Amino acid sequence: MAKSKIKIIPIGGQNEVGKNMIVLEYADDIMVVDCGLMFPEEEMLGIDLVVPDISYLLENRDKVRGIVITHGHEDHIGALPYVLPQLNVPVYSTRLTQGLISVKLKERKITNADLNVIPPGGSFNLGNFRVEFFPVCHSIPDSVGLIIHTPIGVLVHTSDFKLDLTPVSGQPTDLARLAQVGGSGVLLLMSDSTYAELPGYTPSERVIGETFERIMAESPGRVIIATFSSLVSRIQQVIDAAALYDRRVFVVGHSMSEVVNMAIELGYLKPPEGVLARLDELRNTPPENVAIVTTGTQGEPTSALVRMANRDHRQLHIVEGDTVVISASPIPGNEDVIAHTINNLFRQGARVLYDKVAQVHVHGHASQEELKLILHLTRPRFFVPIHGEYRQLKFHANLAESVGVPHQNIFILEDGDALELTKDGGHLAERVSASNVYVDGLSVGDLDSVVLRDRRMLSKDGIVMVIIALDQQTGKLLTRPDIVSRGFVDETESKEMIDASRDLVSHIFDHGTREVDWGFISAKVRDTLLKYYYDQTRRRPMVLPFMVKV
Amino acid sequence: MAKSKIKIIPIGGQNEVGKNMIVLEYADDIMVVDCGLMFPEEEMLGIDLVVPDISYLLENRDKVRGIVITHGHEDHIGALPYVLPQLNVPVYSTRLTQGLISVKLKERKITNADLNVIPPGGSFNLGNFRVEFFPVCHSIPDSVGLIIHTPIGVLVHTSDFKLDLTPVSGQPTDLARLAQVGGSGVLLLMSDSTYAELPGYTPSERVIGETFERIMAESPGRVIIATFSSLVSRIQQVIDAAALYDRRVFVVGHSMSEVVNMAIELGYLKPPEGVLARLDELRNTPPENVAIVTTGTQGEPTSALVRMANRDHRQLHIVEGDTVVISASPIPGNEDVIAHTINNLFRQGARVLYDKVAQVHVHGHASQEELKLILHLTRPRFFVPIHGEYRQLKFHANLAESVGVPHQNIFILEDGDALELTKDGGHLAERVSASNVYVDGLSVGDLDSVVLRDRRMLSKDGIVMVIIALDQQTGKLLTRPDIVSRGFVDETESKEMIDASRDLVSHIFDHGTREVDWGFISAKVRDTLLKYYYDQTRRRPMVLPFMVKV
Repeated sequence: MAKSKIKIIPIGGQNEVGKNMIVLEYADDIMVVDCGLMFPEEEMLGIDLVVPDISYLLENRDKVRGIVITHGHEDHIGALPYVLPQLNVPVYSTRLTQGLISVKLKERKITNADLNVIPPGGSFNLGNFRVEFFPVCHSIPDSVGLIIHTPIGVLVHTSDFKLDLTPVSGQPTDLARLAQVGGSGVLLLMSDSTYAELPGYTPSERVIGETFERIMAESPGRVIIATFSSLVSRIQQVIDAAALYDRRVFVVGHSMSEVVNMAIELGYLKPPEGVLARLDELRNTPPENVAIVTTGTQGEPTSALVRMANRDHRQLHIVEGDTVVISASPIPGNEDVIAHTINNLFRQGARVLYDKVAQVHVHGHASQEELKLILHLTRPRFFVPIHGEYRQLKFHANLAESVGVPHQNIFILEDGDALELTKDGGHLAERVSASNVYVDGLSVGDLDSVVLRDRRMLSKDGIVMVIIALDQQTGKLLTRPDIVSRGFVDETESKEMIDASRDLVSHIFDHGTREVDWGFISAKVRDTLLKYYYDQTRRRPMVLPFMVKV
Repeated sequence: MAKSKIKIIPIGGQNEVGKNMIVLEYADDIMVVDCGLMFPEEEMLGIDLVVPDISYLLENRDKVRGIVITHGHEDHIGALPYVLPQLNVPVYSTRLTQGLISVKLKERKITNADLNVIPPGGSFNLGNFRVEFFPVCHSIPDSVGLIIHTPIGVLVHTSDFKLDLTPVSGQPTDLARLAQVGGSGVLLLMSDSTYAELPGYTPSERVIGETFERIMAESPGRVIIATFSSLVSRIQQVIDAAALYDRRVFVVGHSMSEVVNMAIELGYLKPPEGVLARLDELRNTPPENVAIVTTGTQGEPTSALVRMANRDHRQLHIVEGDTVVISASPIPGNEDVIAHTINNLFRQGARVLYDKVAQVHVHGHASQEELKLILHLTRPRFFVPIHGEYRQLKFHANLAESVGVPHQNIFILEDGDALELTKDGGHLAERVSASNVYVDGLSVGDLDSVVLRDRRMLSKDGIVMVIIALDQQTGKLLTRPDIVSRGFVDETESKEMIDASRDLVSHIFDHGTREVDWGFISAKVRDTLLKYYYDQTRRRPMVLPFMVKV
C-alpha cells in the first residue's frame, strides 16, 4: 500500500450493536481495535453467539501487529477466545480489561495469549502506528480511547464513552488532551454513536449512588440489586450504599463472583472491612441488614434473578418485603423476557424498581451535546461515526456536519467497507469480507444460511417425513407409505388427515415407477402433500420424502 | 347462582397484553365484555393469532345474553370471527366499532351476525344487566366505557381510555356522568391499567396535529406517515395538516384503504374536497404536494412501509428528500423489526421521525394521575385493575389504595380467576378454563403444547432422521442406514461426521435384532446418535429413527 494513505475497515459494529472490530492499515502494518461478540438476533435460531469475520486478517496475517482493546465489555473482548487461536498476535489493554480478558480465556482454556498491560495515558508502537491510551468514562473502569499517530496524521478513536465529570471510579474523559491534539491537527475522528439519537447530556453515574442510598435506607426488608457483572463501579455503589445503612452484601451468581474477586484483587473494587458476606451467613442475617448483588438484568433464564422470579432458586426465595432493583436498561430484543421477569417478581410479593419507574440506571454512552463537544475539541478533517445502527450513525453524521465538518468529509461505513484516506480526501476501496460468523455449540463459522433457513422453516410449521419402500424390480410399493410429523399438527387429533395423505402418496405409485427418476417422484410426493396439507390446515410444513429400494 | 352475588371472570387481558374478554354473571344471565385477539409471543412459533378460551361460555351457552364491545381495536374485536360461529349471540357496540367489526367479519365470510348499534350515552338490557355506554377518549373514535346496573349494585368498566379534554374527534371522557354515578354508589370499578406505571398525565392527541403541521410545512419533499389503520383521528390529523400546506393525501395499503373508506362512509373521517387522491395521480404530483398515509409501524413484513424500506414496493420508492413519520410506538416485542425498518429507511435517503426523536405519537391510555381521578370520582367499594401485565395491575392496585380503597377490597385477577362479589365482600371461587387458544392456519385451538415444544426444539438444533431397512426374518440390515438432517449442520461440510454416524447405527444391528422390540432399538439409535453428535458439535438435534421391515 502506498505510504500516502491509510485504510480504515470496520469488520463489525457498524449498523449493528456488538462485535466491534475496526482494522487500521498503513503500508505493511495492520492494527486491530477491539474484538467483540454480538448476541444473536431473533431470527438467528439456535445460534449462541456471533463473532467478527477475520478472513481479511488471516489473509494478511504477517502484517497484523496486534489487537488493541479499549475496555472489558463483551462487545469489545468477547470474540478473543475465538480469534486468538487463529491469529496469535499480541493484545494491548489496560489492567482491569486484561483481568477480564484473562477470566474469559481461562474459561476456554487458552493459556498462551500474549497480553500486554498499558496504563491510561501510556503509549506504545505497533509498526508505523504509535498508539496512545487516553482515559474515557464509560460504564466500566479503565476504559480508554485511542490517539493514533501515523505518518500521514493523527487518528482519534473514542471507543465507548461519556463525559461524566464526577465519575464513581476512574478518571473523567481527558478533554484537555483531546483539545491539545485537536489544536495540532486531527486527520480523522472515529466516535461512539450508540446514543446519538438522544438530545442533551447523559447523567453522571453519581445519581445512581443517591438512589441506592435512598433504597437501602427506606426498604423494610432485603434489597436485591441486579446489574451487569462488568459494571464494577455500580457494584462499588451497591457496597457503599449498603455499608452506610448497616447491610451486609452477598454476591450471588458465578460470573458476578468471578468478576468481584478479580476486581478486588486488582484494586478496582474496595469493599469496607466486614461488609461482604458469605452466602451461608444469609440465613442468620436479619432482612433489613441484607443487600444482595447479582446478575439477570436481561432475563437470562439461568441467572439467579430469573430463578428467584420463578421460585426456582435453591437458596433464595422472594418474600413479601423484598425490594428488587433492576439496575440496567434492556438490551434491544430482551424487552419481553425482562418484562416477564419483572411480572413474576411482583407476583412473588416483591417491590420492583426498574428503569421505567425509578432512576436506577444511567447508560454509559454520550448523548448529542457530548458528541458535539468531542467533535468541537478535536476539530477533525474527516469523520467516521462508529458503534451504532444505521440511524444512529446517520444522526451522528448530522451532528458532525452541524459543528462544521464538511459533508463530503463524513463517511458512514458499514461492516466490510474499506475507506482509503489521504490527507486530501477519502474514497471507498474494494470491500473486504465481513459476514456474520456464528458460534453454535462447538462450531465457529461453519453454519451456512441453509441451516438457518431450515431452522426458520421448521420453527414455523414443522416437518413431515414420508417413508416409501419400493420393490427395486417393479417400482411398486412394498408397504403402505409411512408418514411421521413433528411440530406440524397434533398427531392424535389429525390422525384422519394424516391417514388420508398416506393414501394420496400410495396413488402416485399405482402404476409402478421403474422408468421415472427419484427426483421427479419425490417432487411429486412433496407437491401433492403440500397442496393437501395447505388446503386442510393453511400450514406449510417442510415435507421430506425418503425412498427405500429393496 | 344466588341472587345476592355477581361473578367477575376475566378470560383474557390479565397479565398479558391483548385478547381482552371479561365475563360478568348474575343469576341466570351472562354478559361478555369485549372479544379481542392477541398477537403471538416470540416463543409461540408459527402461531398466527391467540384468541380467548370460551369453554366456560360454551358450557353456559343458554345463559349468554350478548357480547358488548367497547371499541374497534383488534385486542377488543379481533376474536369475534372465531367466537361468533361457535357462540351465535347478539353483539352490541357503537357505530364505528360496528363498521370495523363488519369489515372483519366480511373478510372471514361471516354474514349472519346479529350486530346492534348503541350510541354513546345510550343503554340497553341484557337480562338482569342494564348496560349504559359512556363516552371515553381513546386512540379510536366512538370508544365507550360501561356503567352496568345490576340488582346488587353498579359496576363501572372504563375499558381503554385516557382523559383527553381536547380530543381530535369524538367526545371527551364523560367525567360528569362518572361523578354522578360515583355519588350514588359504585360497587365495583374495573379500570384500564395499560399505562399504570407512568406518572403524570397522558398528553392530548392535539399535540400531534401541531407536529404534523410543522412537518408538512418544513419538509422539502414527500411526507409519508405510517400509523395504525384504526387510528381514525390520527388519519384525520394527517389529512388536515396536509390540506393546510397544499399536499394531496394518498392512502396506501389494503387495510388502510378499507378503514378509510368505511370511516368516510360513516362520517367519522371528513376529508376536505379534493384532498384525497388516487395512487395513479402520484406520478404527476410534485413531491412537495404529496402526503402518503399508510400502515407498517410495527415492521410488518408485508406492509407498504417495510416494502419501501427494503426497495421492494412496486409503485413507491424512497428518494432523497422524503420524510417518513412513524406515528406509533412499538408494541412490545416488535422493537427489533421496527429498528430494522427505520435503519433501512435512513439508508434509502429518507429523513425519519419516530417516537424516540420527535413527538409524533401519543398513546391512548391514562397515566397515573388520570387513573387516580377516575378512582376518586367513582369512589368504588371494590376495585379490579384490568388490561395489563402483572406489574401494571399491581401499580394500579397501589394507586387505588393510595386514594382510599381498602387493601382487602382490591383484587388482582389473572385470566380464569372467578371473583364472587356480594355487597359486603369478595372471594375467589373455582377457576374457569382460560388457556391460550391458538390460531395456526385454519385450525383454532387444536395446537397442543407438544407441537409448540417440537417447533422450539426444531428451531434450536434442527432434526436428524435415520432410515433403517431390516430383513423381517433375520432382523439384519438390508442396506446401510440412511441419515438425513435439516437445520442441524451444513451437510456438505459435515459429510464425514454424518457418514461416521451411519456406521455407528449399523453396529447396533451387527447381531440382528429379532428378539428385541423396536422401542428398545429406536431408543438405542437415538441415544447413540445424540451422544455422538453432542460430542462432535455440542448441539442436540431432534433424532427420529424409522424402521422399514421387508
